[in-house]
Amino acid sequence: METGRGLFLRAAAAWLCLVGAASASAPPQRYTPDWPSLDARPLPGWFDAAKVGVFVHWGVFSVPAWGSEWFWWHWRGEKQPDFDRFVQARFPPGTSYADFAPRFTAHDFQPRQWARLFQQAGARYVVLTTKHHEGFTNWGSNVSWNWNSVDTGPHRDLVGELGDALRERNIHYGLYHSLFEWFNPLYLLDKKNGFKSQFFVYGKILPELYELVLRYKPDLIWSDGDWEAPDTYWNSTSFLAWLYNDSPVKELVQTVSYGGNYLLNVGPTKEGVIAPVFQERLLALGKWLGINGEAIYESKPWRIQKENCTCSTWYTSKGATVYAIFLTWPESSVLILPSPVSSATTKVTMLGFSEPLKWQVAPDKGLKIMLPSAVPSLLPLQHGWTLKLVGVA
Amino acid sequence: METGRGLFLRAAAAWLCLVGAASASAPPQRYTPDWPSLDARPLPGWFDAAKVGVFVHWGVFSVPAWGSEWFWWHWRGEKQPDFDRFVQARFPPGTSYADFAPRFTAHDFQPRQWARLFQQAGARYVVLTTKHHEGFTNWGSNVSWNWNSVDTGPHRDLVGELGDALRERNIHYGLYHSLFEWFNPLYLLDKKNGFKSQFFVYGKILPELYELVLRYKPDLIWSDGDWEAPDTYWNSTSFLAWLYNDSPVKELVQTVSYGGNYLLNVGPTKEGVIAPVFQERLLALGKWLGINGEAIYESKPWRIQKENCTCSTWYTSKGATVYAIFLTWPESSVLILPSPVSSATTKVTMLGFSEPLKWQVAPDKGLKIMLPSAVPSLLPLQHGWTLKLVGVA
Amino acid sequence: METGRGLFLRAAAAWLCLVGAASASAPPQRYTPDWPSLDARPLPGWFDAAKVGVFVHWGVFSVPAWGSEWFWWHWRGEKQPDFDRFVQARFPPGTSYADFAPRFTAHDFQPRQWARLFQQAGARYVVLTTKHHEGFTNWGSNVSWNWNSVDTGPHRDLVGELGDALRERNIHYGLYHSLFEWFNPLYLLDKKNGFKSQFFVYGKILPELYELVLRYKPDLIWSDGDWEAPDTYWNSTSFLAWLYNDSPVKELVQTVSYGGNYLLNVGPTKEGVIAPVFQERLLALGKWLGINGEAIYESKPWRIQKENCTCSTWYTSKGATVYAIFLTWPESSVLILPSPVSSATTKVTMLGFSEPLKWQVAPDKGLKIMLPSAVPSLLPLQHGWTLKLVGVA
Amino acid sequence: METGRGLFLRAAAAWLCLVGAASASAPPQRYTPDWPSLDARPLPGWFDAAKVGVFVHWGVFSVPAWGSEWFWWHWRGEKQPDFDRFVQARFPPGTSYADFAPRFTAHDFQPRQWARLFQQAGARYVVLTTKHHEGFTNWGSNVSWNWNSVDTGPHRDLVGELGDALRERNIHYGLYHSLFEWFNPLYLLDKKNGFKSQFFVYGKILPELYELVLRYKPDLIWSDGDWEAPDTYWNSTSFLAWLYNDSPVKELVQTVSYGGNYLLNVGPTKEGVIAPVFQERLLALGKWLGINGEAIYESKPWRIQKENCTCSTWYTSKGATVYAIFLTWPESSVLILPSPVSSATTKVTMLGFSEPLKWQVAPDKGLKIMLPSAVPSLLPLQHGWTLKLVGVA
Repeated sequence: METGRGLFLRAAAAWLCLVGAASASAPPQRYTPDWPSLDARPLPGWFDAAKVGVFVHWGVFSVPAWGSEWFWWHWRGEKQPDFDRFVQARFPPGTSYADFAPRFTAHDFQPRQWARLFQQAGARYVVLTTKHHEGFTNWGSNVSWNWNSVDTGPHRDLVGELGDALRERNIHYGLYHSLFEWFNPLYLLDKKNGFKSQFFVYGKILPELYELVLRYKPDLIWSDGDWEAPDTYWNSTSFLAWLYNDSPVKELVQTVSYGGNYLLNVGPTKEGVIAPVFQERLLALGKWLGINGEAIYESKPWRIQKENCTCSTWYTSKGATVYAIFLTWPESSVLILPSPVSSATTKVTMLGFSEPLKWQVAPDKGLKIMLPSAVPSLLPLQHGWTLKLVGVA
Repeated sequence: METGRGLFLRAAAAWLCLVGAASASAPPQRYTPDWPSLDARPLPGWFDAAKVGVFVHWGVFSVPAWGSEWFWWHWRGEKQPDFDRFVQARFPPGTSYADFAPRFTAHDFQPRQWARLFQQAGARYVVLTTKHHEGFTNWGSNVSWNWNSVDTGPHRDLVGELGDALRERNIHYGLYHSLFEWFNPLYLLDKKNGFKSQFFVYGKILPELYELVLRYKPDLIWSDGDWEAPDTYWNSTSFLAWLYNDSPVKELVQTVSYGGNYLLNVGPTKEGVIAPVFQERLLALGKWLGINGEAIYESKPWRIQKENCTCSTWYTSKGATVYAIFLTWPESSVLILPSPVSSATTKVTMLGFSEPLKWQVAPDKGLKIMLPSAVPSLLPLQHGWTLKLVGVA
Repeated sequence: METGRGLFLRAAAAWLCLVGAASASAPPQRYTPDWPSLDARPLPGWFDAAKVGVFVHWGVFSVPAWGSEWFWWHWRGEKQPDFDRFVQARFPPGTSYADFAPRFTAHDFQPRQWARLFQQAGARYVVLTTKHHEGFTNWGSNVSWNWNSVDTGPHRDLVGELGDALRERNIHYGLYHSLFEWFNPLYLLDKKNGFKSQFFVYGKILPELYELVLRYKPDLIWSDGDWEAPDTYWNSTSFLAWLYNDSPVKELVQTVSYGGNYLLNVGPTKEGVIAPVFQERLLALGKWLGINGEAIYESKPWRIQKENCTCSTWYTSKGATVYAIFLTWPESSVLILPSPVSSATTKVTMLGFSEPLKWQVAPDKGLKIMLPSAVPSLLPLQHGWTLKLVGVA
Repeated sequence: METGRGLFLRAAAAWLCLVGAASASAPPQRYTPDWPSLDARPLPGWFDAAKVGVFVHWGVFSVPAWGSEWFWWHWRGEKQPDFDRFVQARFPPGTSYADFAPRFTAHDFQPRQWARLFQQAGARYVVLTTKHHEGFTNWGSNVSWNWNSVDTGPHRDLVGELGDALRERNIHYGLYHSLFEWFNPLYLLDKKNGFKSQFFVYGKILPELYELVLRYKPDLIWSDGDWEAPDTYWNSTSFLAWLYNDSPVKELVQTVSYGGNYLLNVGPTKEGVIAPVFQERLLALGKWLGINGEAIYESKPWRIQKENCTCSTWYTSKGATVYAIFLTWPESSVLILPSPVSSATTKVTMLGFSEPLKWQVAPDKGLKIMLPSAVPSLLPLQHGWTLKLVGVA
């Protein structure tokens, strides 16, 4: 999964949207789970406005918890020697991927705590990997017997339990579902047949999609295909980047300024724990959104997305209001925004501050804004501040 | 599985015979795996002559190894409390049946040693449970993903390996295959639909039968259905009986005298060990057959199956020769056989003894035979001696 | 452990006898657990009369259950490569011997069933390995913390539980206790010091012996040292021999005729199951002793131990009565015993038969005895018959 | 373990100091490991100057990783029901504490990475729990057979490996060693005897201390006794506090201003991973010390430890130089320090800034200091700034 805009673009192509009222204007249509028809589907209205979501990656791959969700592929598909060494050093002789399943215990999985955390993070929707390319279903699928979270491992309906907890908090629920499975013999059979047979589609994919839709009534289904090559598809660098180095605020702002939807990856442990470092990041984002969310949720791109100046400023808008979000506090505490055109009614405030800010017409064009006298311990947050511009064009 | 005659009768109804040259006289026929057509099928010629086989019960049920192959059903279907207590006392909390699979290691499985043992036991064919009602396949079935012996547990093709070892010794190979699976969601779905849908038959049963036939070219396929109620079907009393109390010779002789086929049940451990007590029984039978097999293999029932006298004597025949097998040595060392009609050319010998025996016409009718002077340590075996009668009617 | 006479001879040297009333004639003596004083100790009176015992080998070595009790030594001491391969193939990477302990579950250990079985086998005493050379104690030893059957593995007091069950059936209880431990760091330290330090003796051995004596009040303590070289000490060939090939009757008769004490080795599984083949052997011996025990229990050697004839006959005696036990039934059903001197009052019977047997003075000397007309199915047992001779010298 | 000043005070009483050159002035003394003599021992000189250390809590308690190091005590000593429920829900039936040991794998333990991290955190010494009250030794102790990290679990010499890695980076190494063990039978025996017997001291404690000193030549040994009641001893609230809520800077500054030594608790996972959230905290502290360490390391308390004003300012000193560390940036960017007495030569700088700061005599007394114009993104760190005062009294 990539983060930021790249994700949004792919997401737009990959969503199998199960639209309710939000897309009522569209004529009823029946989609078949083939790639072209999926691509043509409209996104639900709420999704466009939600802007911030969490993508939970959870499955048997959480047992080795090494590399990525692609563990099985790297190990048995590509036969990377370090994956083999890893398994040999830590698991009983002869361990296969299927043998991991009983160790996926979900012992600490408390869906209501997850839901609360995600809400505190400001997420408006949560996507769960109901089934990744390993084929293991996080619900008791009829067509994945003894390879699902009810028959083995957690012995729980993970998809259902998380859904119930999210609904209690009015968080939208999306279901990620892989359209292929690396090692499913039926998939391999169809592949060998040049996809002229469809044992896999009719024996696994379609029944699963029906089950997911009928049982869990998701707000979204994300049917993920394999149109991208594996190594580019999973960009683990960027995944770790958001966690350890970058501010998620920057990614969020960039994405939303272009009309995108920002999805944070979270990988709970095999016991169902969301590690403290993840919790911190999520809560920090939630704090930031608590002050600046007005510029994010339900926002639209403005006519300019980003200032071409050194100050790293992005724009969003809501009706006539323009929001300028800047990530670096200027040394002089004076910020110049070249793009907005001021008027007699222009007013500038900073989210989190009650006092309006002083501004002037900038020497060239745009606005020259006097930021509040910078008192570090009073500044709402370290990374990213939002100016609300009213009466600009 | 019942032993003895009961088994034979059911077996006759249940074999899906894959006939080669032996049944060449029958017109080619295509069978569908429904119950009526299975019942109508002829037995292969070699099977009728083989008389002695071994039935290997091996699967995930060998992990709890408690109760019987019906462990799962007793535990989760009937919810017998002692099964639940058993699991709770010995396995980690939350263990499901699927979690047993990785413990089915087959670490000690040496198919060539098994084949040698079965040959020494005098078996002319061996039947393996390729899949019992639990649905776990002992080969890498395409339609039982991650619920088969290659993906998990043994990580070996048990069906193939045993087959190769048996062929080296020219032992016929039969494959037992259950036509239903207690907890397979597809089976349950069809059942709920009053068997008007056939997801299970087309998604699991037929593909498996094709795989078994094409990959392993068995001499027999035994497709076992559920026409019998579970509790009468598996007669564990009689199963243990042969092991601990009765002489297998008696069962064998009774069965063969009526034209039947005698099948000994063997249950290896989850590691693939055939316990010494099984080995002993098998070898003892093999010793007995080494001397008396002439009266068993390729034999036909005689016009009389059993003498109605106190001496527990059964008959078999081969062409004009009649074999009388008696299980109790008469105190007087004189045996009376009322049924055979003697003639001028009548000759009586005892298998294992070179000297012909003296005989007279019995007072009433039949033969009065003087057995060899009984020297215990010279007697070939303790249980069951065979008289070969030539020139009788 | 060797069987038969060899065992008896070593046993005589190795018992640390804790004598009660049976040896009341001996003056009270305090023994220290050094080798010379142990060797000088008298055997308790009951032991001399008991003749038949069972030696239960049970410990952490029952987990690999491969090779023998000497598993750890072969693996880590001698570094035999096949032992290493064995562990690598079956246990998780990095498994050490200590890691076996939690797998020694004793789940099926039912001491009352064991006691009943041993009584049915005719055993008058049972010896348990309370601690073998691995150092693991089958009771909650104070000086073997977390390396005993209460802290880990069975979580039960195996020594105590078996003792209680044996006492209910008045079976004598002996405790085997190893005086050295291959890998105990204290033992190795003393060894490095040329046994001039005694950390091990005072820190482990003595406290353990005290615990065993005070808590369990055994009838015997068998303190086993290492005066014999490992490879001759454990004669696994002879151990397996009694199980698979020889009649235990022969071993028993040979041992007792020389005044010895016969001890059968039994190795339960890690779960505490005594395998059916062991049970069979034990029960067969019990049946034999049911008829012939009169010639065994409380017997003394006769002036002749064994006839030098082809008939494999051994003698025991009880007061003036002489017992001749023969293992091969003579072809003629006539047995010649050269050694006994007949008299006017000589009477010959066969144990299990009520009728006295006919006899004559043998041509040369001794007795010529007419055995009962041999009716195989009436003969009490196949291996070994006892003639009771009264009025012989 | 408590953090901050409480810890220091106890630490001062509990260190068994193994002094090298640093304490060369003290006359050689032999200490016995009894409580009074331990308390009288001088601290090594380097320790007094080190100020910042890391205390690694690692042992079998890292397997349940629930509650605290006191898991065993809460579970089996106090029998708290939630601990029992925890074990029953997650481990096989009948699991004992000893059974956890094989799961303490240390698979990911990379001592050089730990050492680098600790150095980056600014730690001058590291203390490892070589043995906590559970008695499990993190080295191959001779007197803790099969209950140590070499015989089971990690199968590695954790004490030795970490020591080697720390020495490469010239980090001092301290060994924590518990003087009692809750459940050691020898300890319990001595306790029952009113500590008139000393089986435990001579059989476990003394040999272990000798081993630790001779093998690992630690810079410190921390022999921890049980003079504090268990529930107050381990203050888990404050342990978690430093991790989740408070700034470690505040704790550090408070402790050092009073002459104390600040020790951060770190609890790696059973695999040997230091969780990212711990790493972050440690690295953040290291960054802060990179700028402000001059005021911490080798510092002494000043005549005033803390200003009684609202500005949360603490003092340290080095020779004539005084350091004032304040944690809250004053709104006015003007800081008043009442205690220092200025002189003609007084100079004020802020660590991390090259320019000297302007100051005046404060209205009442002390200094009134003009802080740098606050530019948030230029400020070295958010929490805690240090003013260096030269020429004050």
